[in-house]
Amino acid sequence: MRQKVVISKATIDRLPLYFRTLRVTKEEGREIISSEELGRRLGITPEQIRKDLASFGQFGKKGVGYYVHELMRNIGEILGLDNNWNIAVVGIGHLGAALANYQNFITLGFNLMALFDADEDVVGTIVNKVKVDHINDVNQVVKERNIHIGVIAVPAPFAQEVADKLVTAGVTGIWNFAPRKIVVPEHICIVNEDLSVGLSNLSYHITRKLL
Amino acid sequence: MRQKVVISKATIDRLPLYFRTLRVTKEEGREIISSEELGRRLGITPEQIRKDLASFGQFGKKGVGYYVHELMRNIGEILGLDNNWNIAVVGIGHLGAALANYQNFITLGFNLMALFDADEDVVGTIVNKVKVDHINDVNQVVKERNIHIGVIAVPAPFAQEVADKLVTAGVTGIWNFAPRKIVVPEHICIVNEDLSVGLSNLSYHITRKLL
Repeated sequence: MRQKVVISKATIDRLPLYFRTLRVTKEEGREIISSEELGRRLGITPEQIRKDLASFGQFGKKGVGYYVHELMRNIGEILGLDNNWNIAVVGIGHLGAALANYQNFITLGFNLMALFDADEDVVGTIVNKVKVDHINDVNQVVKERNIHIGVIAVPAPFAQEVADKLVTAGVTGIWNFAPRKIVVPEHICIVNEDLSVGLSNLSYHITRKLL
Repeated sequence: MRQKVVISKATIDRLPLYFRTLRVTKEEGREIISSEELGRRLGITPEQIRKDLASFGQFGKKGVGYYVHELMRNIGEILGLDNNWNIAVVGIGHLGAALANYQNFITLGFNLMALFDADEDVVGTIVNKVKVDHINDVNQVVKERNIHIGVIAVPAPFAQEVADKLVTAGVTGIWNFAPRKIVVPEHICIVNEDLSVGLSNLSYHITRKLL
């Protein structure tokens, strides 16, 4: 019987970093990596890494290290990256175009399936091999292409309206880049990506260093 | 005598959200806001808000609320947003162009002062009223325009090289969007913005909901 384990958000946040580093290690042709080396590459202590990975089960061999391929597969499963999520980006301005071209979508196993915009000049254009559809067609396109995740890259005043449309159309998750709180029904997962947080954080630390 | 207060990273991460909401409140012409309303707008409990803001001093009046203008100014000071940081973006692809057009730079008090690229076709073009310089001129431009923060938006394999150049040129902080760990001297502040973390987080939670 599989036990239900409660995992902290901080641990979940580190798993993609492990996954990325393991991928690079694998590309280098390596089969085993120690927690010490993983730590060195990531700037995380080996103790923290061993603790994080121990919450999910036994992926390593004491005194040898972790089997890269096996650990990668396991972390990918935990994160649900083996589910082949289909993604749609709404709002094909600078940020939306950057996200549509984001190489990690593919690396992480996500499929860019649709793009939406409200601007007639943008609708019909091709970005990263995907044709931009009109946001008014979101219901039909989300259903036809089985879109799981909607990425919101529209200006803040339109974010809630777009979220409502995506939810009605049937997405399960929303990745929100608009700097605005969005309200969604409880069965919808939402992750807010707020760039001002990172920037303010940097400002805070520079200020402290320069004082 | 001003006491040195240790503030948790989680609190620091919430301050920009407070700042943003206060700005909107101010634009609405409001002078006072309660922790309850701030909480409702942000999806954070009023208790958490009162606790966060209490670590810095007394910004509110019991039973009335916070004075919007005063609290905004204080949070801005704590985050160092009153320092008029000068910013340069390196790598003017889709993401770099999106960052160069990022409206929150101005809202948060940052000045976009320079853009750099290595591609001769991009060098000399204008993005958001700033001319793109060649990365080889980074030393001169950073000094002349007093750049404090370098934003790295180049592909991962070039990220460390660009960071080294920015540090040599004299920046104090680095905001890194390349999905690669960057090593910098201890006196340099670095904040890594890794989009795959948010995306994997979303995947994790959708998987848990659908199970």
